[in-house]
Amino acid sequence: MKKLKIGIIGAGRIGQLHARNAINSNRVELIAISDIYIENLEGTTLAHEVPIITTNSEGIFADPEIDAVFICSSTDTHVDFIKKAANAGKHIFCEKPISMNIQETHSALEVVKKAGVKFQIGFNRRYDKHFRKAYESVRAGKVGTPHIIKITSRDPEAPPESYIKKSGGMFMDMTIHDFDMIRYLSGQEVEEISVKAANLIDDSFLRNDDVDTAIITVTFEDGSLGVIDNSRQAVYGYDQRIEVFGNKGLVTVENEKQTNIQISTKEQVASELPKYFFLERYMDAYVDEVNEFASSILDNTELLCGADDGLKAEALALAAKISANENRTVKLSEINLNSSVKV
Amino acid sequence: MKKLKIGIIGAGRIGQLHARNAINSNRVELIAISDIYIENLEGTTLAHEVPIITTNSEGIFADPEIDAVFICSSTDTHVDFIKKAANAGKHIFCEKPISMNIQETHSALEVVKKAGVKFQIGFNRRYDKHFRKAYESVRAGKVGTPHIIKITSRDPEAPPESYIKKSGGMFMDMTIHDFDMIRYLSGQEVEEISVKAANLIDDSFLRNDDVDTAIITVTFEDGSLGVIDNSRQAVYGYDQRIEVFGNKGLVTVENEKQTNIQISTKEQVASELPKYFFLERYMDAYVDEVNEFASSILDNTELLCGADDGLKAEALALAAKISANENRTVKLSEINLNSSVKV
Amino acid sequence: MKKLKIGIIGAGRIGQLHARNAINSNRVELIAISDIYIENLEGTTLAHEVPIITTNSEGIFADPEIDAVFICSSTDTHVDFIKKAANAGKHIFCEKPISMNIQETHSALEVVKKAGVKFQIGFNRRYDKHFRKAYESVRAGKVGTPHIIKITSRDPEAPPESYIKKSGGMFMDMTIHDFDMIRYLSGQEVEEISVKAANLIDDSFLRNDDVDTAIITVTFEDGSLGVIDNSRQAVYGYDQRIEVFGNKGLVTVENEKQTNIQISTKEQVASELPKYFFLERYMDAYVDEVNEFASSILDNTELLCGADDGLKAEALALAAKISANENRTVKLSEINLNSSVKV
Amino acid sequence: MKKLKIGIIGAGRIGQLHARNAINSNRVELIAISDIYIENLEGTTLAHEVPIITTNSEGIFADPEIDAVFICSSTDTHVDFIKKAANAGKHIFCEKPISMNIQETHSALEVVKKAGVKFQIGFNRRYDKHFRKAYESVRAGKVGTPHIIKITSRDPEAPPESYIKKSGGMFMDMTIHDFDMIRYLSGQEVEEISVKAANLIDDSFLRNDDVDTAIITVTFEDGSLGVIDNSRQAVYGYDQRIEVFGNKGLVTVENEKQTNIQISTKEQVASELPKYFFLERYMDAYVDEVNEFASSILDNTELLCGADDGLKAEALALAAKISANENRTVKLSEINLNSSVKV
Repeated sequence: MKKLKIGIIGAGRIGQLHARNAINSNRVELIAISDIYIENLEGTTLAHEVPIITTNSEGIFADPEIDAVFICSSTDTHVDFIKKAANAGKHIFCEKPISMNIQETHSALEVVKKAGVKFQIGFNRRYDKHFRKAYESVRAGKVGTPHIIKITSRDPEAPPESYIKKSGGMFMDMTIHDFDMIRYLSGQEVEEISVKAANLIDDSFLRNDDVDTAIITVTFEDGSLGVIDNSRQAVYGYDQRIEVFGNKGLVTVENEKQTNIQISTKEQVASELPKYFFLERYMDAYVDEVNEFASSILDNTELLCGADDGLKAEALALAAKISANENRTVKLSEINLNSSVKV
Repeated sequence: MKKLKIGIIGAGRIGQLHARNAINSNRVELIAISDIYIENLEGTTLAHEVPIITTNSEGIFADPEIDAVFICSSTDTHVDFIKKAANAGKHIFCEKPISMNIQETHSALEVVKKAGVKFQIGFNRRYDKHFRKAYESVRAGKVGTPHIIKITSRDPEAPPESYIKKSGGMFMDMTIHDFDMIRYLSGQEVEEISVKAANLIDDSFLRNDDVDTAIITVTFEDGSLGVIDNSRQAVYGYDQRIEVFGNKGLVTVENEKQTNIQISTKEQVASELPKYFFLERYMDAYVDEVNEFASSILDNTELLCGADDGLKAEALALAAKISANENRTVKLSEINLNSSVKV
Repeated sequence: MKKLKIGIIGAGRIGQLHARNAINSNRVELIAISDIYIENLEGTTLAHEVPIITTNSEGIFADPEIDAVFICSSTDTHVDFIKKAANAGKHIFCEKPISMNIQETHSALEVVKKAGVKFQIGFNRRYDKHFRKAYESVRAGKVGTPHIIKITSRDPEAPPESYIKKSGGMFMDMTIHDFDMIRYLSGQEVEEISVKAANLIDDSFLRNDDVDTAIITVTFEDGSLGVIDNSRQAVYGYDQRIEVFGNKGLVTVENEKQTNIQISTKEQVASELPKYFFLERYMDAYVDEVNEFASSILDNTELLCGADDGLKAEALALAAKISANENRTVKLSEINLNSSVKV
Repeated sequence: MKKLKIGIIGAGRIGQLHARNAINSNRVELIAISDIYIENLEGTTLAHEVPIITTNSEGIFADPEIDAVFICSSTDTHVDFIKKAANAGKHIFCEKPISMNIQETHSALEVVKKAGVKFQIGFNRRYDKHFRKAYESVRAGKVGTPHIIKITSRDPEAPPESYIKKSGGMFMDMTIHDFDMIRYLSGQEVEEISVKAANLIDDSFLRNDDVDTAIITVTFEDGSLGVIDNSRQAVYGYDQRIEVFGNKGLVTVENEKQTNIQISTKEQVASELPKYFFLERYMDAYVDEVNEFASSILDNTELLCGADDGLKAEALALAAKISANENRTVKLSEINLNSSVKV
């Protein structure tokens, strides 16, 4: 079977994860990995497994053998790398968000469109078997027309303040996955959004003009509703649940527990907590995400989430921020993609 | 054991239910029941069990033997009956809502306060063993300080249009229970409310200037958040779930299934639906509600939900209606209880 | 609606329970209750509610107003009371077991048969909504032909030694309910039985030549299998589960939890224990049991469990005891109902 | 990190599975694979990944580079290969059962013992995260002293008759895993066993003097009890549940569902079936099994299941067959390991 030859830019946690999955995949061949801090790889087994290890990302764009690049570097470098990759005719897999500036994201995607290369955004949750089965059930009409979509999405613990500073804020960093998921499940675009946000966990968010807790309500084109609740700290683990309520029924996805054991004693029936860490929870989804990217190119099939999905989730994150700051409903039509002026 | 002697005004479905529970209770003695359509009782066993059956409610207020009255008549009669009962020195159990007009509700409760009689509002869900256990767990600090309270509250099927016309609207008729529950669970007052409502089920609501689906977000005094989602039609049954998420954990209440059987076949694992009808779901809560009302008077104990709880839930229903109509956040301080002008 | 007029013989725990349910039933009128220790009723509300309270059971048999008697006295009195009741033309509800001696049980039931009165045995679990729904699902063919029926039946705590002494042994006292349930679910008679029993809890059973733990395997007429596991002490509560596995699927009944709350913390997800006490677990079943007995007479409908069911469960208990004692498989055909010699 | 160099004998389904896991493991290096029908590998990716592919197993024993062999060939070849491997000083991983003849198994293991090589038997379920967590909970005293251990173990569908013929019978082929699991969970040896077996599925088992359904009761050294129920055909999927009931509580392991979705409609709440195929259910266990074998040699740690575990499970399978055939309880002491005469 033919393999997709790829280069990975960025050797941090997520870059290394994709590298490992690429090596184990029978649809991908990992040719090169670059990072300006390439010493990150020292002591890892990747150091012995990847043919080209370099600090020079330009070499990856220039390498005629490489079909596609994975952009896993810091967010502020994405737009530049996307444009370079597109101009070099490489297909692109890019981690979320594309950028912190919706107009820049838009401009990068315009270059991608012109170049005619494939572009996949790293919304890994679409590849989760539970959520995908829920999605398929909704599309198959099992619950009829969706009326209310609910997403519970809570991190197990708050990130360090150094991360918060560069995160782009909770909506852009964390809720962006939920924005994508709610669009995916609904099959509709969001028309307006209304956010109530709060600082309830600790001051690290407040000090950085960020929030740690939120309820986000969206109205879709057809008038149906969605609601997301977020927290940066769920002490019982990574809480990732969804619910699609329609005129013919309800589909829910519960958390995956660490194991299925239950212990009944004099005091209670105790079962295990949800998986704690996102890499553990979505381990299989990350594998499938890479394989499906490869298949979409090798077999020329449809992408499950593309450039437009990346752009729209960012627009929602931006609108959410405005809604929270101004304590009002924001229409998505207020977000101007072509203006050089930041909204 | 001493028994509380009561009269019931209103012999409709809910009046008959309380009558039945009063007869079976060892803390209550049902002396009289009145209704202008007293023929409602024909053919029921109550017809033979209640000593006084009358169309004249005045007789109940005048009867010196009667300690307390249950006001179960149509909402537009509540204020008048409350004032009469209070002035007659009777303790009062009143079905929700107290009235459709917050100022009138307020004035009736002023009379109650002056008379010094006990007043319990019919928020039966507080007496449900599941919700009460959740409440007690929250109060005992099991989940720490609440950050997000979520209520899912969906009726199994839409009421007939004749009912919709007189219902006072979804927020006053249905969500009012959820408003009470969210205050009860939080232990905080709501400061502002933001509603997205929709007409997704059928035109019967729209024709009556009402809605059938809503997401309601509230902000409590301490900045914590709450969210209620409502639908007038959940085909799988009466959906009544709650969730209190705090800084030390999460407490949830799932629906009660009709039975605990599960059938696994080639196709699926099938379990039973939630109880369908509210009288079935809250059967035990209705029994406890009456008994605890009696105890609060006989033993002079604290009421679980009183006049203020009735007033505050109504204020929330009114604020919700304004928020939905004007598509904006409404502060509860906007609701003027003393004005003769309707907000 | 016509009511069945009854007398209750025996005013212990179970007699009082039936009395309470009879009083609340709209199909039954409780005329009299007798007990040689009638002072048991002092201080109960029953003392004021039952027209005739007596130490003389003969008066009940002689009372022409009484249609049926409930035999709730100690087991050693059952046979005598059954014969007297039958001879007096009273319908009979009798608590389990009928007697400790299968031949005596058989002789009493012969008298019942000759008298042509109705006879219901107190296997309350058949009236439990969960088990009944499982039964109906099996009969409706939802799981095809049963291959394996499993019953888990464990008491929350061991009875006092004074009870053990008179209990007739675990198989006759406790497993007898499971023997009835396994016949009910199967729809087949048991052909042979094989028991492994043990003393694992404490010496109180051993001292009385009794066991506290057992695995009981049965083979039905059609070759299908059943297995019951018993323990006298499940610290987490009354464990009552069943499972019918057939060629088209599996139906299971899980325990009823005290409430549906779940609490997730750093340590675990904790849910509530099963109901602890048999009267609490089967409260509704006891109500239905009485009402259905009344209906079967008033409306002349089929009994859900009759004389034969009582006899067969006793034969199984006896066979189980032989199997455990002799460490061998016992065929039910070894049990001789007509012999005056105890097997 | 040092890797264990292995050769695999047998390139059927299970041999290929171990080969794939060995290739992906960072503790194992797969040097060679042999099979007399080596054409089995044609068209697989293994064909390009394994350095030595051969029909000559002798070469594997003779290869000084190889540290350990995996014996995955047909059962009738195991004893010969075990002896050869042991005599060549290779550590051994052997699929279950070791042989169909307990005396031959014993003799092979005597050779292993003399050679001083490590020997692991392929009881993959011990490596399942759910069962292992249950085991650890039991060992940690969470449920006190075990009184009853229950295993439900049912295949999703009957094997083809060609497989049945060579399988050694249900107890040796299928129940052997449950025999190992029940010993593992108990921490005790079985003293006696009593089996009721039946032919309820189809005639293919009967024609081959085999059974398809069974209830197996065991008594452990300390008097505690265990029960296994088996079926060759559970239409709803691979049913693998365990339960350890002790004097301080109960630990249960439920099946893993295919996904966590639930769909509530007018008819029911439907959730997904258990995983259907054993390779899918135990996928991770097979990975861990190989890695732990490697670790036990590389780091000289204790094996989780060794030669004795293989022998004892076989003895139980043999005793079960005798019990079923002779319809009696069989003591394990009846099984003579040293006799040349088959029991």
